[in-house]
Amino acid sequence: MIIVLKPEATPAQAEELLQAITALGLRPLHMPGTERVVLGALGDERVLERLHLDSNPIVESVKPILAPYKLVAREMHPHDTVVELGGVGIGGERVVVIAGPCAVETLEQMRRSSRAVVEAGARILRGGAFKPRTSPYSFQGLGLEGLKILKCVSGELGVPTVTEVVEVADVELVDTYADGLQSVDRNMQNFRLLQALGQSRKQVILKRGMAAKIEDLLLAAEYILAEGNPNVILCERGIQTFETATRNTLDLSAVPAIKARSHLPVIVDPSHGTGVREFVAPMAKAAVACGADGLLIEAHCDPTVALSDGKQSLFPEQFAALMRELTPFAAAAGRAL
Amino acid sequence: MIIVLKPEATPAQAEELLQAITALGLRPLHMPGTERVVLGALGDERVLERLHLDSNPIVESVKPILAPYKLVAREMHPHDTVVELGGVGIGGERVVVIAGPCAVETLEQMRRSSRAVVEAGARILRGGAFKPRTSPYSFQGLGLEGLKILKCVSGELGVPTVTEVVEVADVELVDTYADGLQSVDRNMQNFRLLQALGQSRKQVILKRGMAAKIEDLLLAAEYILAEGNPNVILCERGIQTFETATRNTLDLSAVPAIKARSHLPVIVDPSHGTGVREFVAPMAKAAVACGADGLLIEAHCDPTVALSDGKQSLFPEQFAALMRELTPFAAAAGRAL
Amino acid sequence: MIIVLKPEATPAQAEELLQAITALGLRPLHMPGTERVVLGALGDERVLERLHLDSNPIVESVKPILAPYKLVAREMHPHDTVVELGGVGIGGERVVVIAGPCAVETLEQMRRSSRAVVEAGARILRGGAFKPRTSPYSFQGLGLEGLKILKCVSGELGVPTVTEVVEVADVELVDTYADGLQSVDRNMQNFRLLQALGQSRKQVILKRGMAAKIEDLLLAAEYILAEGNPNVILCERGIQTFETATRNTLDLSAVPAIKARSHLPVIVDPSHGTGVREFVAPMAKAAVACGADGLLIEAHCDPTVALSDGKQSLFPEQFAALMRELTPFAAAAGRAL
Amino acid sequence: MIIVLKPEATPAQAEELLQAITALGLRPLHMPGTERVVLGALGDERVLERLHLDSNPIVESVKPILAPYKLVAREMHPHDTVVELGGVGIGGERVVVIAGPCAVETLEQMRRSSRAVVEAGARILRGGAFKPRTSPYSFQGLGLEGLKILKCVSGELGVPTVTEVVEVADVELVDTYADGLQSVDRNMQNFRLLQALGQSRKQVILKRGMAAKIEDLLLAAEYILAEGNPNVILCERGIQTFETATRNTLDLSAVPAIKARSHLPVIVDPSHGTGVREFVAPMAKAAVACGADGLLIEAHCDPTVALSDGKQSLFPEQFAALMRELTPFAAAAGRAL
Repeated sequence: MIIVLKPEATPAQAEELLQAITALGLRPLHMPGTERVVLGALGDERVLERLHLDSNPIVESVKPILAPYKLVAREMHPHDTVVELGGVGIGGERVVVIAGPCAVETLEQMRRSSRAVVEAGARILRGGAFKPRTSPYSFQGLGLEGLKILKCVSGELGVPTVTEVVEVADVELVDTYADGLQSVDRNMQNFRLLQALGQSRKQVILKRGMAAKIEDLLLAAEYILAEGNPNVILCERGIQTFETATRNTLDLSAVPAIKARSHLPVIVDPSHGTGVREFVAPMAKAAVACGADGLLIEAHCDPTVALSDGKQSLFPEQFAALMRELTPFAAAAGRAL
Repeated sequence: MIIVLKPEATPAQAEELLQAITALGLRPLHMPGTERVVLGALGDERVLERLHLDSNPIVESVKPILAPYKLVAREMHPHDTVVELGGVGIGGERVVVIAGPCAVETLEQMRRSSRAVVEAGARILRGGAFKPRTSPYSFQGLGLEGLKILKCVSGELGVPTVTEVVEVADVELVDTYADGLQSVDRNMQNFRLLQALGQSRKQVILKRGMAAKIEDLLLAAEYILAEGNPNVILCERGIQTFETATRNTLDLSAVPAIKARSHLPVIVDPSHGTGVREFVAPMAKAAVACGADGLLIEAHCDPTVALSDGKQSLFPEQFAALMRELTPFAAAAGRAL
Repeated sequence: MIIVLKPEATPAQAEELLQAITALGLRPLHMPGTERVVLGALGDERVLERLHLDSNPIVESVKPILAPYKLVAREMHPHDTVVELGGVGIGGERVVVIAGPCAVETLEQMRRSSRAVVEAGARILRGGAFKPRTSPYSFQGLGLEGLKILKCVSGELGVPTVTEVVEVADVELVDTYADGLQSVDRNMQNFRLLQALGQSRKQVILKRGMAAKIEDLLLAAEYILAEGNPNVILCERGIQTFETATRNTLDLSAVPAIKARSHLPVIVDPSHGTGVREFVAPMAKAAVACGADGLLIEAHCDPTVALSDGKQSLFPEQFAALMRELTPFAAAAGRAL
Repeated sequence: MIIVLKPEATPAQAEELLQAITALGLRPLHMPGTERVVLGALGDERVLERLHLDSNPIVESVKPILAPYKLVAREMHPHDTVVELGGVGIGGERVVVIAGPCAVETLEQMRRSSRAVVEAGARILRGGAFKPRTSPYSFQGLGLEGLKILKCVSGELGVPTVTEVVEVADVELVDTYADGLQSVDRNMQNFRLLQALGQSRKQVILKRGMAAKIEDLLLAAEYILAEGNPNVILCERGIQTFETATRNTLDLSAVPAIKARSHLPVIVDPSHGTGVREFVAPMAKAAVACGADGLLIEAHCDPTVALSDGKQSLFPEQFAALMRELTPFAAAAGRAL
C-alpha cells in the first residue's frame, strides 16, 4: 500500500503511522519528498484495513499495490480452472453453449425450446423459474412449478440445467432441481446470497451487475470462494451506459481483462448484453473470438409469444444457424463447440 | 401505446394487431403513412403486455404514452405524501435530517455519535447492523447485537431510528428493533425484499441503485405500494458514472425529476453520494435548495477509527456546523429544519 | 412524428397543431384518448422542426418514427458502401488492417514501424502528425515535419496512409500529404471540421466520440455526406464508462448496430478502445468476428520508447502474430485479410 | 510518482530505472517488497514523461502523487481568482447570473429577451451566433449577423456579453464583438482552440465536456493558462450518463470538487445540465447553495418559437421569479446576486 500524506502532515504523525504499520506485521517504508511525504506498507494489505487510513485526516490518498481479491486471483493460481457442471467442463477445450428460454412457461414450451437447442448443439439448458422483473405488473415466473418442468425436461433429454436463484431461502430448493445456480445481475452484490451460494458447493454462474466494475465482480466471486465453494463461472452480460441502441453495452474487453486477473472461467450472455435479437449472433461470435469459455443464449420455440425477453430470444432456426456459424470461430480460437 | 410497424408489414398483419388491441379492451388507432404504418392503443397500457409486441417481428418499436408505474405516480395522486416515521413527518413542512454512523460498532460509539447528532438537531438516528461490503474481508456489521444497541440508544435519547435490512429473512427481526427500514442501493431491485417490505407496512427508505434510472426507482417503489404499504421515502444517493473525483455522482436533478412524477417524499444522502467528507456539507445545502424533504448523513464520534466509510463521515463539530449553516437554506426553501 | 399532448391541452389547441402540420405538407393524424390526446405527423420529419414542438408548453413529448439521418441511412441505400482509400477498398470482401505508430516521431522510427506492419500484412499505414493530448505538457506531434515523413515512408513502401486532422485550417495541408483523413474522437462533434471534410471529397475515418451515442455518430457522418462527400468510414474506438480496468469500454455491439442502420463501412480501433497492449489482439479478433470491415491498430518498432500511447502499442512481433491469428477469424467471417 | 514493477522484474532492471530517475533530476526511492518492487520518484513529475514508464514491459502501474495540472491548481495559488468580465467580477462576493437566449435569432428577439433578463437582474448577456447542432438539418446560428445584433443590444443596455466560439479561425472575429468567449462542451478538448483562446487574453468560459472528468477539465484549462491567459471561468453543464429523465446529469459535486483543486471560478449551466425548463430553477438554487460563483441560464422572450433549445429556456416571467427566489439562497451562502 502506498500512503500519500497531506502537505500539512508533521514528521511525528508520519512516524506514528510507520510504527502502526510495523505493529501490523507489515514492512514500512518512508519516502520524504519536497512537497509530500509518501509512506509504504508491504505485505498482505488486508490487515491494513484496521488502520482506517481512508478516514485519517492527514492522509491524502491510499493506493493499493496488490489486488484486494486473493482466492480468485490468477497470481496464486496460474492455471485456468475448469468447472464441471453436470458432466460438462466449462473453462476447458470446448466452448460450452448454454441455451433455452428466458422463462419456463409451460411443459410444452420448455420441451420444444429445449429439444431445438439441444439438437442444434447446446450442451446445457437454461430456463428461469424465478424471474426478477423491473415492473411488478410483469410475469414473475412459475416458481416451484417451473423448477419441476425444468427437471422433467432435463431428464427427458439427458442434459444438465442452470436456473436463476434470487433469494437465500430458495438456494436449497433450487439446488434440488437444477445442476447449476445462476445469480442474477441485480443480485451480484446481494452478499448474503453469495455466502449461501458459497456454502452450497454448487456450480454458480455469477453474472456481472450493470454498475459493477470488473474488480467488484471479482470481489463478489471472492465471497463465494471464501466460503469454500470453488465452482464459480463468471458471466459478462452488459453494463449500464448512455448508449440506447442496445439494452446494455456488452463489455467484451471484460473477457481478456478477467482472464488476466483470475483463473476462473468466463462466459458471455449476448442476449441480455444487447437486448436485440439481430445482434445476438454477431456478439456470440465476437465473444468466442476474444476467448470466452462459453455462451449463455436465450432461444424460444416461439419468441413472438414469449412471456419475457422475447425481443432478444432467438427463433429455433436462428439458433441452429448460429451454432453452425460459430464452429469455425471456435476452431480459429483453437477450441471446439 | 404507439406501435410503429416495419416497412414490410402487410395490411392484413396490421388489421390483425388492431383486432387484438380491441379484444384487450383498448381503443385502437390506425395511422397509415407513406413509409410506415403506425398503430395506437389507448387505455391502461399494462394489459398490452399480453400481446408481446416487443417480440413481434413485424413491430419496429413500441413507445408508451403513459408511465408504467401507477400507484406512485403523481397523476392520480396530485398532493405530496407525508410519511410518518416514529412521530416525525417526512415530506411536510420540515426538512428532516437523519444522521448517525455508517455502522453500529459499540454501545459507547453509538451513544456518543447519536448524542452529538441529536443535540445538533438530527431528528432521526441511523446506524447499520447489517453492512453489505464490496469485499468479504471488510467489517460486515454486528448483526443482532447492533440492532439491540440501536434500540437501546434510541430509547435513551427518545429519538426514532432507521437501519438497513438486506435480506427477506431479516425483515421481521429488524422491524422489531427499528422504526424505519432502509433498503440498500445494491438491493433496490431485490424484488423479493421489496415485496416483503410491502407486506410489512413499515416505513421504508428506498435507496436508488447505482445503475437505476429514475423510472426504475419508481417501479421498485411500485412493488412496495402494490403490496399495500404506502409508507415509502425515496432516496437519491449517487449513480455510477465515469467520474472518479467522487465515489459516485450525486444526481440532484433526480429530486425535481421525481417530484414531477411522484407524490412520494424524496431525501438525499450526500455522504454516499460523494464519498468525500469535505463535499457533504455543500451537497447537503444543495439538496435542500432543490427541494429535498430530508437528508441522510453519516456522522461518527470519531471518524478516524470508524470501521466503515470513515472517509465520508462527519466529525461531531462538522455536523453541528452543517446544521447551523443549513438553517437559512431551509428557510430560503420555505421550510424549517 | 408522434406528438403526445399534456392532459390540459384543449381541443382547440390540438386542432391548431393539426393545421400547422398540414401546412407543412405532412399528413396529420388525430388520436383522442381517455387521458391524453396524441397527434401524428407523417412524411419527412425534418420540416417539423419549424414547429418547435419540443418547446411547446402543451406538448408532453415528441417521438420520431423515422431516423433523423437520411443520407447515411441504410433505408434508402440498402447495399453496403465500399470506400476506396488509396486503392484499397474498405467495406468489401477484405478486412483491411490499418496500422502504424500513434505518432510520427522520426523518419527512422516511422520507417521501421511501417516496414514491420506492412511486411506482416497491414494494407494502410497510420501515424499522427498532429496529436491532441489531454495535458499541455505531453508531446503534441511533429506537425508538418511529421506529414512529410509520413509521405516519404508511404512512397518508399508503396502503401497509402491515413493521419489525423484536428483543425479546419489544416484540412488542405493534410490532404496534400495523406490518402485518408482521420478525425479524432474529441472532434466528432466539431461540426465546422465535419463540414470542411465534407467539402474535401477525401476519404474520412470518422471516430466515434467517447460520449457519443450511435445516433450522434451517424448524425456527424450526415454532416459530411450532406456536403457532398460520400467517402466516410465509421470507427468504433471505445466509449466513456465507469469501468477502469480498460482505458475506455470498446462497444463492439456498435458494429452490428451501425450496420443495421447505415450502409457505411465500420472499422474498429482496439488500441484506443482498450488502452492495454495485451487486450488488443483478443479484441481485434472479436471485432472481425462481429463484422467489422477493418481494424485500426497501433504498432511501434519499439513501444518502450514511444512518445505517446506506448502502453497500448504492439511490438512488431506481436503485430505479426496477430495478423497470423486473425486469418482464420476473417475466414470464419467469410472474408480475407 | 510511484512505480510498481511486475513480479518478474530483475534487480538490475530496477537499478537501471532508478538511475534514469536520478538522471532526470528527480529523487529516486527503492522499496523492495516480498511480492513486488516499488520505486518512487519525487519532484516535478512532468519530466518523468520522458521515461515512457507506461509503455515499459517491466512496469505494472504508475501512480502520480501530485496533480498533473500546475497553473490551475490551488496548491500553488491558495486564494480564489476573480475574473473580471466587462466590469463584472466572477468568483468574488456576488453570484453572477449570465442569461439570454440559446441563439441570437433576430434583433427584436434579442432585444426583448435581453431587456427582460437585465431588468430581472442578470448582469451579463448570453446569445449564440455560432450554434453547433447534433443534426446538420438544425438551425446553425446567424454567424456574423448574430454577433452584430449581440453587440448592438449590449450597447443599448450597457451590459457585457458572452458568446460561443467554435473555431480557431473565429477567435479574433468573436473577440471584436463580445466581452467573453464561451467554449462549447463539444470543444473542451479542441486543443488548438484552447491554445488560441490562451493567446487571446480574453475572458473564457470553459464548459466541461460531456465525457470529461474533472481532471480533464482542469487540464483543458491548463492549456489556456499555459499560453498566458489567466482569465478562465470553469462551467459545469452536465455529463453523459445512463439516466434519460434529464438531457444530461448535472454533476453539482463538481463545484466543491473543483474548488478543492483549483483557484479558478466555477459557474453552473442548469439549462443544458437538465434540458428541462421545470428543473432549471431548482438546480440553479442548488448550484448557488453548493458554492457556484455564477449561473448560465437560457431565457427567451418566447420559448415556444425558439429556434434552438426552447424546451429548456425560461419564459421571461419564470426568469424574473427565479431571480427573486435566488436572493435568499445567495444570502444563505454569504453572497449577493
